[in-house]
Amino acid sequence: MHKVPVGVLGASGYAGRELCALVERHPGLELVFATAHGQRGQTLTVAGRDVTFIPTEEAPLNEARLVFSALPHGTSLEWVERAQAAGAKVVDLSSDLRPGSGGEPAVPYGLTELNREEVSGADLVSNPGCYPTAILLALAPLLSEGLIEPGSTVSVAAASGVTGAGYTPRPDLLFAEIIEDFRAYGVGNTHRHLAEMNAVLRDRGADVDLIFTPHLLPVARGILATIVVRLSREIDKPLELWSRAYADEPFVEVSATTPALRDVVRRNVVRISAVKAANTRAPVLIITSAIDNLTKGAAGQAVQNANLMLGMEEVAGLPA
Amino acid sequence: MHKVPVGVLGASGYAGRELCALVERHPGLELVFATAHGQRGQTLTVAGRDVTFIPTEEAPLNEARLVFSALPHGTSLEWVERAQAAGAKVVDLSSDLRPGSGGEPAVPYGLTELNREEVSGADLVSNPGCYPTAILLALAPLLSEGLIEPGSTVSVAAASGVTGAGYTPRPDLLFAEIIEDFRAYGVGNTHRHLAEMNAVLRDRGADVDLIFTPHLLPVARGILATIVVRLSREIDKPLELWSRAYADEPFVEVSATTPALRDVVRRNVVRISAVKAANTRAPVLIITSAIDNLTKGAAGQAVQNANLMLGMEEVAGLPA
Amino acid sequence: MHKVPVGVLGASGYAGRELCALVERHPGLELVFATAHGQRGQTLTVAGRDVTFIPTEEAPLNEARLVFSALPHGTSLEWVERAQAAGAKVVDLSSDLRPGSGGEPAVPYGLTELNREEVSGADLVSNPGCYPTAILLALAPLLSEGLIEPGSTVSVAAASGVTGAGYTPRPDLLFAEIIEDFRAYGVGNTHRHLAEMNAVLRDRGADVDLIFTPHLLPVARGILATIVVRLSREIDKPLELWSRAYADEPFVEVSATTPALRDVVRRNVVRISAVKAANTRAPVLIITSAIDNLTKGAAGQAVQNANLMLGMEEVAGLPA
Amino acid sequence: MHKVPVGVLGASGYAGRELCALVERHPGLELVFATAHGQRGQTLTVAGRDVTFIPTEEAPLNEARLVFSALPHGTSLEWVERAQAAGAKVVDLSSDLRPGSGGEPAVPYGLTELNREEVSGADLVSNPGCYPTAILLALAPLLSEGLIEPGSTVSVAAASGVTGAGYTPRPDLLFAEIIEDFRAYGVGNTHRHLAEMNAVLRDRGADVDLIFTPHLLPVARGILATIVVRLSREIDKPLELWSRAYADEPFVEVSATTPALRDVVRRNVVRISAVKAANTRAPVLIITSAIDNLTKGAAGQAVQNANLMLGMEEVAGLPA
Repeated sequence: MHKVPVGVLGASGYAGRELCALVERHPGLELVFATAHGQRGQTLTVAGRDVTFIPTEEAPLNEARLVFSALPHGTSLEWVERAQAAGAKVVDLSSDLRPGSGGEPAVPYGLTELNREEVSGADLVSNPGCYPTAILLALAPLLSEGLIEPGSTVSVAAASGVTGAGYTPRPDLLFAEIIEDFRAYGVGNTHRHLAEMNAVLRDRGADVDLIFTPHLLPVARGILATIVVRLSREIDKPLELWSRAYADEPFVEVSATTPALRDVVRRNVVRISAVKAANTRAPVLIITSAIDNLTKGAAGQAVQNANLMLGMEEVAGLPA
Repeated sequence: MHKVPVGVLGASGYAGRELCALVERHPGLELVFATAHGQRGQTLTVAGRDVTFIPTEEAPLNEARLVFSALPHGTSLEWVERAQAAGAKVVDLSSDLRPGSGGEPAVPYGLTELNREEVSGADLVSNPGCYPTAILLALAPLLSEGLIEPGSTVSVAAASGVTGAGYTPRPDLLFAEIIEDFRAYGVGNTHRHLAEMNAVLRDRGADVDLIFTPHLLPVARGILATIVVRLSREIDKPLELWSRAYADEPFVEVSATTPALRDVVRRNVVRISAVKAANTRAPVLIITSAIDNLTKGAAGQAVQNANLMLGMEEVAGLPA
Repeated sequence: MHKVPVGVLGASGYAGRELCALVERHPGLELVFATAHGQRGQTLTVAGRDVTFIPTEEAPLNEARLVFSALPHGTSLEWVERAQAAGAKVVDLSSDLRPGSGGEPAVPYGLTELNREEVSGADLVSNPGCYPTAILLALAPLLSEGLIEPGSTVSVAAASGVTGAGYTPRPDLLFAEIIEDFRAYGVGNTHRHLAEMNAVLRDRGADVDLIFTPHLLPVARGILATIVVRLSREIDKPLELWSRAYADEPFVEVSATTPALRDVVRRNVVRISAVKAANTRAPVLIITSAIDNLTKGAAGQAVQNANLMLGMEEVAGLPA
Repeated sequence: MHKVPVGVLGASGYAGRELCALVERHPGLELVFATAHGQRGQTLTVAGRDVTFIPTEEAPLNEARLVFSALPHGTSLEWVERAQAAGAKVVDLSSDLRPGSGGEPAVPYGLTELNREEVSGADLVSNPGCYPTAILLALAPLLSEGLIEPGSTVSVAAASGVTGAGYTPRPDLLFAEIIEDFRAYGVGNTHRHLAEMNAVLRDRGADVDLIFTPHLLPVARGILATIVVRLSREIDKPLELWSRAYADEPFVEVSATTPALRDVVRRNVVRISAVKAANTRAPVLIITSAIDNLTKGAAGQAVQNANLMLGMEEVAGLPA
């Protein structure tokens, strides 16, 4: 069988490198180009093969049947359009086309488990942010059942490994600045991913105030979201809600024990647990949800979407 | 001036070692004994002096004017009583006498900033847990002003360095099990510190459901608590509430920027920030509060209390 | 094809767990038992399957065609003999039968690349220590060519991740004791692995004083050895010596750049580089050699040996 | 007493920041300016005071009685001359004036313990590199006694925390690139510090080939050097050599146990141990030497030198 030729725009960041590695190991995909800006000319060794980054401007877009864009937010959209004009399908990993990004994009949102049908026929998919992936997959079963108290506050404290901040050298991301530290950022509901989550929540009929506080962890990879939700009614065995909703999902693990980063790192899965809070009057659930920010939170989910867009097996080439 | 002779029971754990170090460097205190169980006979070098742990049973309690007990929960109370019988004042760092611990202790609770008067005259003080120190000092100004929405859920996600789990060797605390990992524990409001916090909150008239989810960080020291509170009314400049409440406190830092662990490690301070949430209908505050779990969260606060109990300067011997 | 039934004695340590994981993923092996002492009854999840540790005394030795013993040094030999008596082939990962261990064992030494023939026909193989694996494979080509200055000092500074110290809970291996620290241990040529290396070096005709100083790294896995050797004569392109010696080896990587731990972690390879020292009068080589202490340094090499003992492909089931 | 006004050129790197912190806490020094290039205008908070970096070109050199230059190698010399022209004494932390740097500088070399007299009267001192500080202080007593085998190879494997690579953002120093990794660099005797060490060794009559292999540790601060030396004759109690040589030194700790990074971090000390190698024919010593690369290895030693140059107590303001 011939492999499908694909290209990666913006391959030198962490998500881009992960994409190159996944494509190189994918039984049905073949990497025909990988582009970079600052690191053009540099070589990445993945799966024993050398990948040399070419300038984005020199990307032979028409040689690819599908293009992944991991270009920076704000600059991706232009290249998405060029790739489409060259006849390629596109998965855009930037925020340019995500829900809540400002325009009125009719672009399918590649949170695969929630939008499988839309994604399957699509020529262009907007790949979700890492935090929204962990948080929305955790909340979706509650939304479907109308179980969240209307008008209530949903509080999400999430923590991410440093690769979530990208490969761009910044003094505050140097090893010596991160080790032995921990802090919140974007406090006050100012993180870019909030708009993305709110747009999806609204779309699914949620009537809540989402409070989203991300934190920076001294680890390389992984996101853990801890979500507190007031319920509109008592429920008995909360975990069953997720077990039922995700019964047939190859990339969702519903767990009786609290997920840890090491359960999910380098795997294209989300791992979710849910527990009722003791010692409260109102019924409250605490949901914990873990992903690898570069795999299920970025490159892995992008390949999962690409698989569907190309009519391949959804699980092809993905570490579960 | 003569130094006050003090002893440390249970000195071999992380809090006990920190106590020994603080006492050795304290201008007005002198360490006359330090006890241990499993590590009896071992020697700790602090401030250039060697401290050898004697068996707890052999502690010359009557030689100390004040005794710190860092013995394990459940075994401390007996030694607190023995030390009192021998004529010593006592600061108990265990949970045995804390609010919510079950009995009806009339023991002053050594969250110094909130109970300075009671502590000052006391012969026995129960030193707070590390999480309650960070969280209750963050919430107190809101409680005083009646600003929390009655009946609401207060959601606290807190993360602690590994010394918070103690010096006891457990396979799950080995370096290789912690590095590159992060997880929640005690999910579902089951942590021992919840009862302590609820007792204090009730005492101060709070009508809330506290949801407390601790997490284990791959760092040695430090606690960061991220607290989400629904307000009963809009307020304009939230930070001023804390600035006013703690205007004269030597060990409380109110900060316009989000505190990080490295702002507080090895210092006897709590550092607090508060921000209004954007993009909500109900008024919501996000409060972040950081301490060193071994200093302000344990040994430092214990010395702060001892200073008051002994009529010394509250700040004596403490790194601020 | 039927899978070969194998058992793991002492499966609860880091090497034992790695063995279970490798066996579970091996196309030709099937795990029929895994034993533990302190952790009997506990369950390990590997490759999606649950492995429950049984007491070593209850191991059905006669059900296995090959047994791996990862029992502690000193207690392994007895079980090696029992397993042999029950008709199983054995790979012993303890030091009990290694060269230099005291007795005069005629047991093949499973440093596979150097002893492939002996290992292939063997019923019992002694698996090398982790440090000797990295160091002896680095030195072997020099020895074969008689290139080391007779009577000279060969200086080896090696550093290992903390899993090298085992899974036994010890206070000095707790996360908070290791993070941000680095130290040498066994300084003065007192490490157990020295005798093993010296025995092999003597066997291969080396006339040198080996100085071996191990260090403890704040990482989970990996060993890097930095070796300084005085040559008996100038050589031109040192790296070619290793390229030639290991031309056909599937698990040896000869590298023009200095190997890093992350080049080898979770892979059954040794990665070696060699550079001539500038600014010296005598000709000196600096050789750097990296392995994963749990893979090529323990469980991976054990499976490599087992593959040969069982007449399978040497590379079967091994991550290269 | 009036404090001596000092300035820091190049204050925004790790050594420069450490200098600012030490000066701010120094009882006899007062910081009158701190300059930076890329980070001009930024503010550093040390010891509760805010220090704002001004452009180096705007430094009021004539207001300082002593200037520390932590400017990059190659650009420092020009500013050293300008500061001297303005009437200030200068401690230069760059390599521009160090032994072996190429010119024939008659500048005193501020390895204080070895050159105290020269430094005391000096107007300009060249502050040693971090590695040379740890290594030369370890070797000096052997050199004085003529104990190193003539013509022998002295092998030094040294490992440094990441702050040794500076505060400049480079992708390879990002947290996610360093955590869980370890590697050698400058392999083959190519590190800049080799020339500095060789010049000093020659000066002290050493007839050896120094092999110096630095490594990059996943820690923020600290250097550990492990040094293997062939002796010209047997000695009995090697440690006494160092104890005698450094008997009156406030910043040298001679230790019977191997030093660890955590023994020296944030302290202006070098900690040295020495052990005879067992199992060798030739007499060999293994010396381990630890410093904090930013304190004794840079800013601390610079202040130590400044104290002597200004006629203050050598220990003033330094954490021992």
